Amino acid sequence: MPEYVPGLEGIIAAQTQISLVDGANGRLVYHGYVIADLAEDMSFEEVAHLFWHGALPTRAQLDGLAAELSESRGLTDAASKSLAAIAADADPMDVLRSIVSVQGVTHSLQKPTLEAAIHATASFPTILAAFHRRRQGLEPVKPRADLGHAANYLYMLNGKESPPELVRALNTYLVLLADHGMNASTFTARVIASTDSDLASCLVGAVGALKGPAHGGAPSAVLDQLEQIGTPDNAERWMREARKRKERFMGFGHRVYRTYDPRAKILKAMCERLNPKFFALASKVEETALAILHEEHPERPQATNVEFYSAGVLQAIGLPKDLFPPTFAVARVAGWTAHVLEQAAHNRLIRPQSEYVGPEPRKPVPLAERG
Amino acid sequence: MPEYVPGLEGIIAAQTQISLVDGANGRLVYHGYVIADLAEDMSFEEVAHLFWHGALPTRAQLDGLAAELSESRGLTDAASKSLAAIAADADPMDVLRSIVSVQGVTHSLQKPTLEAAIHATASFPTILAAFHRRRQGLEPVKPRADLGHAANYLYMLNGKESPPELVRALNTYLVLLADHGMNASTFTARVIASTDSDLASCLVGAVGALKGPAHGGAPSAVLDQLEQIGTPDNAERWMREARKRKERFMGFGHRVYRTYDPRAKILKAMCERLNPKFFALASKVEETALAILHEEHPERPQATNVEFYSAGVLQAIGLPKDLFPPTFAVARVAGWTAHVLEQAAHNRLIRPQSEYVGPEPRKPVPLAERG
Repeated sequence: MPEYVPGLEGIIAAQTQISLVDGANGRLVYHGYVIADLAEDMSFEEVAHLFWHGALPTRAQLDGLAAELSESRGLTDAASKSLAAIAADADPMDVLRSIVSVQGVTHSLQKPTLEAAIHATASFPTILAAFHRRRQGLEPVKPRADLGHAANYLYMLNGKESPPELVRALNTYLVLLADHGMNASTFTARVIASTDSDLASCLVGAVGALKGPAHGGAPSAVLDQLEQIGTPDNAERWMREARKRKERFMGFGHRVYRTYDPRAKILKAMCERLNPKFFALASKVEETALAILHEEHPERPQATNVEFYSAGVLQAIGLPKDLFPPTFAVARVAGWTAHVLEQAAHNRLIRPQSEYVGPEPRKPVPLAERG
Repeated sequence: MPEYVPGLEGIIAAQTQISLVDGANGRLVYHGYVIADLAEDMSFEEVAHLFWHGALPTRAQLDGLAAELSESRGLTDAASKSLAAIAADADPMDVLRSIVSVQGVTHSLQKPTLEAAIHATASFPTILAAFHRRRQGLEPVKPRADLGHAANYLYMLNGKESPPELVRALNTYLVLLADHGMNASTFTARVIASTDSDLASCLVGAVGALKGPAHGGAPSAVLDQLEQIGTPDNAERWMREARKRKERFMGFGHRVYRTYDPRAKILKAMCERLNPKFFALASKVEETALAILHEEHPERPQATNVEFYSAGVLQAIGLPKDLFPPTFAVARVAGWTAHVLEQAAHNRLIRPQSEYVGPEPRKPVPLAERG
């Protein structure tokens, strides 16, 4: 009998060309490029092309991809109507999960294709922007063919173009969050893909997994905690009291990184530039959190994770807190779709075992005799 | 570096009290009861209670559960409107996936609860019946408080009560398919649950995984193949030619069972009684398939799986072919919800690793120089 591995920790569930999370060296690699070399200069579209094709695009390829994304930003009639039916106070992650599903309804099973991957990636910002407009009582804003993916998302949300600095910041965020090895949502997408299901099913499952606070649901929790702390002066006192109440510090620790998360480093620098007020508080909270965590567990590597400074960057871009998790999905859908295509190309049903720890079989007592 | 385990075969991903798939002995155990002891005499509701509470219900408990299911069969306004927006020719699995998602929309994250499990289980037949009525241009039929789960499903589909023999057959089918260890959809649900996400997210992912032909999408394929074969006389000729074309026989083989699937045995007997025409053809096809498979791979255990005779039973009950996979979900949601509650009670994030097999890191070529 094989051994039970809680959380499948240390088990390799897939081979992938898409990304390498090199936890020991604090390095994230996207198909042969270190994230620090991509974050500043590449568009999200280039990174998506890298994932889907295994190579950075030429100018002509990039223009072709941009055109295809541009043509695929619309919602189906069923998706628009379903979106309109959902309550305005709904969790945007639930809206995304539901409308990605409706948008993916077909008459018969379709194998995942690159075309479907592009369409799905194009639709995520449209879904979120349409919902965000509606809950404010505003009409949806049609995407513009002359704007890139990040710029279009902000344009559709706000009804006006955002300053180039903020578009650039969102683009960097999307690049940084686009893939990350075998995280729980990507793994979910691959398990679903392994049954030969369709792309929409994989993405809907992935959105559902990303919703969990132990995965993608934490960036807004970082902001909640910072709001409670209030000022840098208050950090140490508040945080020591929080530990007495056994509260977790949000935005610290990761199962894989044993050193500083390379994404957090880049986001921290962006945060300092774009959101100095957040940065003043957050950097003090970070310093204090790392000191307290080190006091408690000097043997454990403790580091700031991607969620901590994501919160400050997304706030600076002007996103409301409840759009942080689904904006994570806007980035990660590039990785999800690439993983689904990769899984489908070298497929084997992912079907682990369970260990039965229930009672030994006995005869059932008939209902009439059960009292 | 740990080893890559394709398909996670032989890896134990969870401990569970819910069911044991004893492949070596051809035995399926539900929390201490062998499936053969439950299939004929237990209602689906009793089995769901067994999963959720770890004990068969008393009469009073069963009445309480029946009342709670009865009160939870309705759809939310958003779910009804979304259902109405989806095209009438949609794959019912896509409809189920989408409407389970919309039905589960909330304002803020809810932990999975027993109450939510009961509500979700109650809603699956309503969703499918409402869609099936609508695509025929018929009004939805309200559930009846005096009918059990299986009876209500048929009543809502057909607008009239089904004969007791068919209700009983559907109930047995639902009991037999209610859980099955760490299959791909249940595993999907547990991975999503492990992120601390909500129940709807887990179920939506599970439906998406069940949609895959390598998991739950095959029972209708069995019927397709039998229709092509046409008559018992034609079986041997058709099947030998199919093998020359490298076609798979649908409804044979399972990763875990090394002997006859105990569910298939029960379904086969039901099939003989309820659907003699199907049985005459299917039993000849089964015999021929097993003989050919044995000739090809005498070393491999080959056995009829649950899907083969499911097709005949569901056909006898009067379900259209494209409702076979979602009716599988109507059964399995009892297991999914129980697994989600179990995972949430002893949680650890399920986050395996991947092995990077992409190129070694190098410097990216700037876009302008990429030609």
